[in-house]
Amino acid sequence: MYYDELSVGDSASFEKTITETDVYSFAGIIGDFNPAHVNQRYAEGTKFGRRIAHGMLSGSLFSTVFGTKLPGEGAIYLSQSLTFLAPVFLGDTVKATVTVTEKRDKGRVAFDCQATNQDGVVVVQGEAVLLPPRRPQA
Amino acid sequence: MYYDELSVGDSASFEKTITETDVYSFAGIIGDFNPAHVNQRYAEGTKFGRRIAHGMLSGSLFSTVFGTKLPGEGAIYLSQSLTFLAPVFLGDTVKATVTVTEKRDKGRVAFDCQATNQDGVVVVQGEAVLLPPRRPQA
Amino acid sequence: MYYDELSVGDSASFEKTITETDVYSFAGIIGDFNPAHVNQRYAEGTKFGRRIAHGMLSGSLFSTVFGTKLPGEGAIYLSQSLTFLAPVFLGDTVKATVTVTEKRDKGRVAFDCQATNQDGVVVVQGEAVLLPPRRPQA
Amino acid sequence: MYYDELSVGDSASFEKTITETDVYSFAGIIGDFNPAHVNQRYAEGTKFGRRIAHGMLSGSLFSTVFGTKLPGEGAIYLSQSLTFLAPVFLGDTVKATVTVTEKRDKGRVAFDCQATNQDGVVVVQGEAVLLPPRRPQA
Repeated sequence: MYYDELSVGDSASFEKTITETDVYSFAGIIGDFNPAHVNQRYAEGTKFGRRIAHGMLSGSLFSTVFGTKLPGEGAIYLSQSLTFLAPVFLGDTVKATVTVTEKRDKGRVAFDCQATNQDGVVVVQGEAVLLPPRRPQA
Repeated sequence: MYYDELSVGDSASFEKTITETDVYSFAGIIGDFNPAHVNQRYAEGTKFGRRIAHGMLSGSLFSTVFGTKLPGEGAIYLSQSLTFLAPVFLGDTVKATVTVTEKRDKGRVAFDCQATNQDGVVVVQGEAVLLPPRRPQA
Repeated sequence: MYYDELSVGDSASFEKTITETDVYSFAGIIGDFNPAHVNQRYAEGTKFGRRIAHGMLSGSLFSTVFGTKLPGEGAIYLSQSLTFLAPVFLGDTVKATVTVTEKRDKGRVAFDCQATNQDGVVVVQGEAVLLPPRRPQA
Repeated sequence: MYYDELSVGDSASFEKTITETDVYSFAGIIGDFNPAHVNQRYAEGTKFGRRIAHGMLSGSLFSTVFGTKLPGEGAIYLSQSLTFLAPVFLGDTVKATVTVTEKRDKGRVAFDCQATNQDGVVVVQGEAVLLPPRRPQA
């Protein structure tokens, strides 16, 4: 979508059940083998009691919405902030939602980012700024 | 590492060549099949001229340093901000470095985050806040 | 999309560069280690001269269009026919396009399926029948 | 196997338990993140009540039999039709069986294709035509 097609309040989501496969593959790509993610014995001794997904895995689902839905093709990702509010456990279903909050100068657009689990608990919150493509001049 | 072991200026890094396999696997986990990442024909028509890695993939390398080196085991990841400054191409070698910038109240520690490519270009910059584990009381 | 929203001629596509990673991961899931796909030495002795992707990998991209774009969520995949017309090599960019050709009885919809490579050569052709969701009655 | 070694009635099978890892990896290759496959919360609201494997994943197991057993090395896959008759759930064990039904002109061979689950229910049915290698002339 072009800059001029976006309006404050526009929103899109992507939802996925985060599996053990996801967490292990994610660990394998980025190299974050913190035992909270890949060591069940260790995780049982933490306050969460079981393995949790990487916060950056849930946070990356915003990239999915931006890259495939809103604004989609042609947009440049300028920045992303993430606050990790609650753990995501293996088997949780995470819904990442982005909403246009402001159209800024120089063609930039600000988005509110919220990821919730299957119980509606906000697990990640943040803000992103993107540069959607400009409509070609006539 | 415990909170009291960390000092302003402490730093650690993780470096990895980002391969086509990394980018494709990352897309496959998060579902971000934006053509800039997985469509060579499309990418040739963009200003970058070839496929680029997801910004969140490079940004996730900070999680790797936090989770495995500094502070490592037991720390809680509170927040991460990322500014995407330059593209990472398939085959680029990205070095993610985190540096303690401030020891805050309530046991929180702030970190500067910088990811550079093999030419020393900063590709991602950000800030993170973590809650390292407290040393058990005697 | 609901059955009544679909019209003959409606079309959608998904395009991806098929990499060595894709072919090897696909082989690893389905177990098809035919040397034409995973043995470069063998493949050099075939008429194609190099490794080719599984026909079913390219054919599965129609599932992607159906499952995520047209008709998307809620549709039931009834059948898919595939004719493999030309080889897909590692590194080729395949565009899978589906087009509504007929709205049949019992809520079924027929689609023409065409996959082309970056040179416009048709690599897979076929037909599919889906059962899109019915619009809830008022 | 060469064309002249194949007889009507010849049959071969490949059987595999389809895991969550298979379904997630398959989605990650082809990009089909339809919620019926990767969203447990959504799937609970469908008539199947839980996530199902991609039909094309089960259908691709015929490729495995053709590529590795009957006729195996050197055969050209000309066409494959698939009718999806019943859902495959994560954890189901699918047996794909192909049987020679006809030896046609120009060296082509037709196969009946049946995939059943662990309860003997036919989940996918189809027909395929292959061009097995010709025996080198003396």
